[in-house]
Amino acid sequence: MQSVYVSGVGMTSFGKDPRPLVEIFCQAGQQALTGSKEQDVEAIYIGAMNPEEFTGDSNIASQIAEELGLTGIPAVRIETASSAGAAAIQAGFQAIASGYYRRVLVLGGEKMTHLSTSATTRILAEVIDKQERQCGATMPALAAMITEKYRQRFRLSHSALEDMLCGVALKNHFNGSRNPLAQFQRAITREVYLASKFIATPLRLYDCSPITDGAAAVVLTSEKTDVRLSGIGQGTGPVSLRERDVFTSFPATRIAAARAYQMAETSPQGIDFAEVHDAFTPFEIISTEDLGFFPPGKGGEAVIEGKTALEGPFPINPSGGLKARGHPVGASGLAQIVETTKRLRGQTQSKRPVKRGLTQSTGGLGTNNFVTILELADQPVVQNPGLPWSPPPPAAGGKKTTSRPRPISDEGEIETFTIVYVTPDGFLPPLALALVRDRNGELVMAQGEDTAHLKIGREVYLKRLDDFYLFTVKSQLQKVQESLKRLLRRGAGSAAKAERTAEEKP
Amino acid sequence: MQSVYVSGVGMTSFGKDPRPLVEIFCQAGQQALTGSKEQDVEAIYIGAMNPEEFTGDSNIASQIAEELGLTGIPAVRIETASSAGAAAIQAGFQAIASGYYRRVLVLGGEKMTHLSTSATTRILAEVIDKQERQCGATMPALAAMITEKYRQRFRLSHSALEDMLCGVALKNHFNGSRNPLAQFQRAITREVYLASKFIATPLRLYDCSPITDGAAAVVLTSEKTDVRLSGIGQGTGPVSLRERDVFTSFPATRIAAARAYQMAETSPQGIDFAEVHDAFTPFEIISTEDLGFFPPGKGGEAVIEGKTALEGPFPINPSGGLKARGHPVGASGLAQIVETTKRLRGQTQSKRPVKRGLTQSTGGLGTNNFVTILELADQPVVQNPGLPWSPPPPAAGGKKTTSRPRPISDEGEIETFTIVYVTPDGFLPPLALALVRDRNGELVMAQGEDTAHLKIGREVYLKRLDDFYLFTVKSQLQKVQESLKRLLRRGAGSAAKAERTAEEKP
Repeated sequence: MQSVYVSGVGMTSFGKDPRPLVEIFCQAGQQALTGSKEQDVEAIYIGAMNPEEFTGDSNIASQIAEELGLTGIPAVRIETASSAGAAAIQAGFQAIASGYYRRVLVLGGEKMTHLSTSATTRILAEVIDKQERQCGATMPALAAMITEKYRQRFRLSHSALEDMLCGVALKNHFNGSRNPLAQFQRAITREVYLASKFIATPLRLYDCSPITDGAAAVVLTSEKTDVRLSGIGQGTGPVSLRERDVFTSFPATRIAAARAYQMAETSPQGIDFAEVHDAFTPFEIISTEDLGFFPPGKGGEAVIEGKTALEGPFPINPSGGLKARGHPVGASGLAQIVETTKRLRGQTQSKRPVKRGLTQSTGGLGTNNFVTILELADQPVVQNPGLPWSPPPPAAGGKKTTSRPRPISDEGEIETFTIVYVTPDGFLPPLALALVRDRNGELVMAQGEDTAHLKIGREVYLKRLDDFYLFTVKSQLQKVQESLKRLLRRGAGSAAKAERTAEEKP
Repeated sequence: MQSVYVSGVGMTSFGKDPRPLVEIFCQAGQQALTGSKEQDVEAIYIGAMNPEEFTGDSNIASQIAEELGLTGIPAVRIETASSAGAAAIQAGFQAIASGYYRRVLVLGGEKMTHLSTSATTRILAEVIDKQERQCGATMPALAAMITEKYRQRFRLSHSALEDMLCGVALKNHFNGSRNPLAQFQRAITREVYLASKFIATPLRLYDCSPITDGAAAVVLTSEKTDVRLSGIGQGTGPVSLRERDVFTSFPATRIAAARAYQMAETSPQGIDFAEVHDAFTPFEIISTEDLGFFPPGKGGEAVIEGKTALEGPFPINPSGGLKARGHPVGASGLAQIVETTKRLRGQTQSKRPVKRGLTQSTGGLGTNNFVTILELADQPVVQNPGLPWSPPPPAAGGKKTTSRPRPISDEGEIETFTIVYVTPDGFLPPLALALVRDRNGELVMAQGEDTAHLKIGREVYLKRLDDFYLFTVKSQLQKVQESLKRLLRRGAGSAAKAERTAEEKP
């Protein structure tokens, strides 16, 4: 396979950008071309999640080629929800690795701030499962339910979890304050974090990445440069929450990481720093565990202990991450590559020498994830240091078209839950949502009749209205009444059986 | 570069399909997997133009992986407007050619028939230029304007052009009648063609491909099979009509063909048959010229002479083409690959042996085009027979971001025109549209104040309302009056000059 190197990189100032999307793309593209030794790219690979609905731009690949003055050159658009920028890098990588092209321009971008928050939330929520959306689920709501499950799985107190999430937010905002292209240029305090409103419990405003305009660009080439793209991998996972076997890890990341480490002949121990997809602060913690940097359940402690700080032993999101750099969905996966390349080249404020960086990008709710490894091409790198990376368990949770789920029964218990305070149009806050496991073991998303008494494991009644489910937490009285009824039925059953036995006896 | 082969192929019955889009995709995918020697694909490449707006499906790559029971496997979606299926094949090709994957499933599909014709037309029209759309231009309207220009460029009478277009329609409907998966299963007569209403002059209903649901699938592999993907190329062109230097050819096809012929070490003379993108009948004619099968202006005669008929010396669209097979936009580029593979394998009704077939797919109004060459892997093929293919002129017509167009003057002449009878919402038929070349040589799309006296070269007045232009054809009287005014001004100028000269003399 032909080796692939990074030449010029470019990135717009993330935040609110009044220019048309195509112009934003072109600024990043021109910058990457200007920074490259050779400017004559043979093709353009463009990552964009949904320019059709965000800005009304269709046929965007041809539009961008034309606006760059490169009409004639092949141009394609790649999409994998919010990891589209990483998907574009992978497609560009494969095109160069095959020898089909020698030099390509990879772009990623999105324009989102011109719409209302509710319109943006609606478009972003289209990537999640329809039944779950119908109950009022949004991306933050589902992320919150995963976070609550994480808290319970690793037996964390509410305040311990809060410390961890706050730790990620403070760290990434501090890092963003050192990045001149980041959307948020100011560090925040614990008081500011705690004063921010809940979006969906336990996630606050400062746990969620912002709505952003921006684009990033990278020139990939077969000619040797100072930075080599040495590993890349991708994996998918179930779209809905209810099809998952595991909630506190994203198997798609583990699959992607296994391939990337194997290709780069390295392991988590061989990585010096990483940019991971912190669309929500808990996702940074989960990702660092899925990538093998910390054991399951230990990612949060690492943040609190300062291990992942800008000048700590293992910096995570030194650029500020999606949280502070901003999250123009189609750009983020590529912005990570730009930031990592700059850091390897010593072009960021931190001058500590590094040899190998990793990026991890997430599409949807962990459904389409990428891992990429970049390293200095000239420096001798110890291959496969430390323990070898253990491959993830085989892909699981795939819904077979042949096995249809069983009908949902009218009782179950809460698998995880959240109270949503920023709701989609048509839903009034506060909105209680729970993933309920019914008596047959099937999972279903349901809306709560009220927001009280929510806890993982609590028993509920389920009511169905077409594809929509309502749940009610059983009261102590109801549970006692039910036990009595069961006892009575059993008693009645025993009595009836005794009668039958008596009758049968001659 | 690793050789790439076609294994199993699959295709749904094109037409109206009541199933959800993801299920349609999966039927084609399952069929291709079942037809393959090995079923364990390593990745999925999906071509889809706009599932977000057609069916409300976002994150479709993850959805399809899950529905196929392949969760975990990498899956990406590729888009280049109406050539998305071909773009997916190219991405899959590059992935295998690089050695990154050994076996991938490529899918292309779209679901469109559930929407009203006006809604579908609006979504399809998003791929064209915004200013041209604001004047009421649709895809058929722009295709019609290209056709009128073709007629004038090659000095064809109205009836000669009609014969050619009718020839394409009759041939492709006849071919469709032999294809059990085609949307239209009946041959049509000249009378039926002539009785069909105008969509945009000179294009009738039977010159336009239908609105269709459907999906196609191909398994690509590095293991040798009977069919090799020996050449593939892509090119882009200007999005708008007004940025074009040439109207009667699509340079994007010529760029794509040059690369594909070079890769496959062949030329137009080495091809036995072709599937080309006949979204409109004139586009089949133009494509066969761009591909080098016939000289410019001679593609129509070839149809009338029967050269491109099903059993003619050089069959074009033996499957029925987009015209009769149907045109689910994201599927078409891949359906061509499926049909060509089947024909090479002798699985179509025509049993005439063939060795090498070509497919050509068009994105938008010729803005993002692909050419692919498939050939029998085991049969000895004479390389590069006949004359070598002359490479196209360098890419032209690219709009440089630095050179802004000059303001449009208030007079000009008609470069090409059409009368639109099926108009987008908000525009009443009949609607006159013209591409007008102003006094500075700039082109602009304008709406006519009436539909009379339209002819290429005719002088018009231009009126501007924001980004919208209105044109009025100058009458003979107005032209005489203008000449008089010019003469008078010149006379007055001469007199003034004479006076000044007199004064200067002492």
